[in-house]
Order: sequence, then C-alpha cells, then structure tokens
Amino acid sequence: MPRLIESVPNISEGRRSEVVEAAVEALRATPGLRVLDVSSDQDHNRSVLTVAGDEDALFAGTLALYEVAVGRIDLRAHQGEHPRMGAVDVVPFIPIEGATMADCVALARRVGQAVAERFAVPIFLYEEAASAPHRQNLADVRRGQFEGLGAKMADPQWVPDFGPEAPHASAGASAVGARMPLIAYNINLGTSDLEIAQRIAKAIRHSNGGFRFCKAMGVMLEQRQIAQVSINMTDFKRTPLFRVLETVRSEAARYGVPVVGSEIVGLVPAEALMDAADHYLQLEGFSPGQVLERRIRETE
Amino acid sequence: MPRLIESVPNISEGRRSEVVEAAVEALRATPGLRVLDVSSDQDHNRSVLTVAGDEDALFAGTLALYEVAVGRIDLRAHQGEHPRMGAVDVVPFIPIEGATMADCVALARRVGQAVAERFAVPIFLYEEAASAPHRQNLADVRRGQFEGLGAKMADPQWVPDFGPEAPHASAGASAVGARMPLIAYNINLGTSDLEIAQRIAKAIRHSNGGFRFCKAMGVMLEQRQIAQVSINMTDFKRTPLFRVLETVRSEAARYGVPVVGSEIVGLVPAEALMDAADHYLQLEGFSPGQVLERRIRETE
Repeated sequence: MPRLIESVPNISEGRRSEVVEAAVEALRATPGLRVLDVSSDQDHNRSVLTVAGDEDALFAGTLALYEVAVGRIDLRAHQGEHPRMGAVDVVPFIPIEGATMADCVALARRVGQAVAERFAVPIFLYEEAASAPHRQNLADVRRGQFEGLGAKMADPQWVPDFGPEAPHASAGASAVGARMPLIAYNINLGTSDLEIAQRIAKAIRHSNGGFRFCKAMGVMLEQRQIAQVSINMTDFKRTPLFRVLETVRSEAARYGVPVVGSEIVGLVPAEALMDAADHYLQLEGFSPGQVLERRIRETE
Repeated sequence: MPRLIESVPNISEGRRSEVVEAAVEALRATPGLRVLDVSSDQDHNRSVLTVAGDEDALFAGTLALYEVAVGRIDLRAHQGEHPRMGAVDVVPFIPIEGATMADCVALARRVGQAVAERFAVPIFLYEEAASAPHRQNLADVRRGQFEGLGAKMADPQWVPDFGPEAPHASAGASAVGARMPLIAYNINLGTSDLEIAQRIAKAIRHSNGGFRFCKAMGVMLEQRQIAQVSINMTDFKRTPLFRVLETVRSEAARYGVPVVGSEIVGLVPAEALMDAADHYLQLEGFSPGQVLERRIRETE
C-alpha cells in the first residue's frame, strides 16, 4: 500500500491572492502531491494549505512551497491577527494510512534540514518531532512571534534544530513537526442551559483533569437554542470519539439532559469512525485489513 | 474518483490447479484489474475468484477468464458438491466506491452480451440485473444444474437474455448479474442455550418476517460453549448492521441474555462501518465526503 501522509503548511499570506496562487501552483506542480484544500483568511493574513502524498512528494512539495514563500513574503511588512514567526509559519506532517508517526517525525527532520540548508531559514522541530519537551507545544515555540525572534533565539534554550542561529531577515523561522490528525467534534445537548455544556466541557478536557487528548468548551447554538460541547480531539487513537461521547452522555444525564446529536466539522480519518463502529458493534478480533477498500489499496 | 467495482466470478474447477492458475493469470494480466482473493474447494470442485477494478478492467478481465474457462473446463466431466450450470458458473458485479448499482447492471449486460457473442455461451441476467422477477434468485436460475439445462431452456420462461437458446455443449450457461456486497456478520450471546440463538435468528430473518436483507440461523460455538446468531447481510444499505445488532440485543434481553460480542467474517465495505459510526455517534449531517482518505481518492 502506498504511504499516505497529510501536511497542512500555514503561510503568512492571506491577502495577496497572486502569492497564494503561486504557492498553491508550486504544490500542484509536484508529482504525486494532491492539494486537498486551500483556505485564506484576510484578517489573519494567513493561508492554510492541505496536501497529501507520500514522503517524496511531500518533501519536494514543501521545498517548492518555501521557494515561493521565502521569495515573496516579507515578515517585516506583515500584519495580521494570527500569531506567526515565519513566511512558512508551520509545517505539520500527519500519518494517515500505511505510515507511522515515526515516519512523519523522520520526514519532518529531513524536510527541516533541507529547508535550512537551501533557504537559510532556522527550523524548530515541534510536537512529536520536538528535540526537547519545552519545544513540543507550538504556542511556546512561536511565543514572541517574528518581532521577538532575534531576542528569543539568543537564549540557548531556543537554538534551532537546523539552520542559522538567527532569524532569516524576511522569512523569520519555521516550526516543522509531526502530529496526529485533529478532529473537530461537537456534541449537542437537549438543553438551552449553556452552563451545563460548560460544566461538561470542564469535566472532559485535559486541562481540568479530563481526557489526555481532548480540548473542550461550552458554546451556545443561538439559532437552535441548544447548548453544545465543542471539542478538539488531538489524538483519536488514544482518546477515542466514542469514549468522549459516552462520558458527555453520562455527565449530561446527571442534569437530566439528553445528547441530541453530534457533528464532525471538516475531515475525519476513516480509522476514527472504524474505531467507533468496532466499539459499538462490540466486534471481536476486527482488523482494518478486513475493510474492502483498504484491501484493494494494499494490492496497489 | 476512479470507479471501483468488485466481481466474484465462480468457476467450475477446484481440483486441477494448473487450470485455476491459468484462470487467475488471465485476470492478473488484465491492466487495471486487481486480484484480491482466490479460494479453491476440492469437494465443491469450484474456485471463487475475487477481483476489483473499473468497468473496462472488469469487462476485459471477465472475457479473458471465459477464454481460459471455456477452453479448459468441460461440464460433461465435472463432478462436485456445489450446484453449477457452467464453466464460468456465476459472475456478480458489486458497487464499492464511486459506482452505483445501475453502473453494475449496465456492466452485467455489457459483459453478458460480449460473452454470448464471443463464446456462444447463453447468459442469464440475475439479481438486480434480472430481466424478470422469476430470474432474480440465483438458486432458481441454476435449478436443474448443467445436466437439466437443455430441458429447462426449452421452456419459454428460460430463454436466455443473451446468446443461443440451448446450452454450450461443454461450458453450459452462466448467470451474470449485479448485487450488493454480502457481509457475514455473527452475534455472540452470553448463553450456552442454542435454542435462544435459534429463536432470535427466526425473529430477525426475512423468511420468517424479519428484516428484508437478513438471513440468519442459530449455531453453537462448541469451544466457547456459547450460542451465536450467524447472519448474512445481503444489503447493508437497506438493512444496516447496527439495526440488526440492536434487535438481537433486545430479543436476547427478553431471555435475560446479553450480547457478548459480534464478528465480521472476511471483508466488509467501509461504508457499512461508517453507517454504524454515524448511527451510534448520533452524527448530524455527516457525509462520506468528510472521510479524509475518500477525499484524497476523489482528487485522483
């Protein structure tokens, strides 16, 4: 089966459409790379590009993206609401099918090294690829942003993993790493009491003692007049959707409130849904190799 | 997205390995066709070949298979326990991804016509491709087997859909059709009382008033000393796995018996598991297009 890895590079350009188009064109022109989504935000002045392919396609495509971004984006003139420290701000690699997290970590290192050599942009490895615990969290790596990067990198704690020990004058620095896919998963409650959703969110989220790979908050769906537990699942293998749902159901029942539905926003890896089917159908000895489409791809 | 159709041709040869190998080689040599499984049974003197591809690959591969089978299998000398009427006995086409049942019916007609013209083998369209209700059921089409085929085809009810109005001297006739994938799905009960499994099987199966696309019987798992409801799901879109499981659970509870697990034997289409996830996670507005791997294939 061909290895399938996803990458979601974020570039610090969301206003000049010709620059975004040139970046996308560089990705599209890479053999074996597929562009799944392009999303530009004017306020953030940032574009999120979603691509997939095998290691070689992602390696070539990412370097082609840097060629455009480093040449055409100058952080000294960049303004936008979203925190950023580089022309190519962050490049995560995400295992999807036939590839492991270790493959993605290796790819992050390979890409990081090549980018540093070719473009003289300092690279910080983050998340699963981080070289030290204090570099895991992207927010920590990016704190201070482009403007504070020179001072930050003078601290031995923030020597880059690859490349020069000072920021690139116009292109700053990049975070390159490996992580699990994110799943945006919301659970709708049969109540208009926002406080109940907020209490449940607190019960399930990691920061307050809940599930390790779960971020959550309570929000109000004004149109439907129902409260929602809005969740980011950061590792569906270790904190699965069904376990979070059943915990929310149990917590809600304590207030006499039912779960009326749930929703997945955007894309979801097939395995996250397979795991839910496996759980609820109480399957014995089920293997992903039994999925017909997967068996077919394994013969490719 | 490339159209993906499965086919499971059955040939009346399970003993002479060189003939089976020649048949498999003809399939393997067809561009774009993938051989997923080959299963030969000596007692049945029959081989079940599982392949997948798009319409053109299946068309070419099926004709290549007939070339071998019609040339090397003589039903006049064939003995085996399984009912059969042709060298290539039955050819079902099964929609998997990006293809509809209508596509498979059209393919069955196209293949049937070409086989009849090229090999002078009479073709009966069956299941979803059947040209009349009495020809839908494969068992009815095959009743009388090879030996009774001449007499059967003298009846105007059994004029073939394509080809000569008498059997091919050595290769008999074939059933070519379209159907949904079969799923072998077993549900294990927390009891050693076989009768409870038999009663539940009767409650859920079509022939006794149960679900339209469900065949079931009660069996004993001697090693584990538990009873099992052994099920064939013949159309998981219209009779979904989760509905059958929850009905079995409810019927078993009437005897104070729990469902201890279930199992899928062999391959299962991804969509059957997605449907279970969608149901139990109570998803609102979920679309298969949100599955990441599928989105990627859509860009192919």
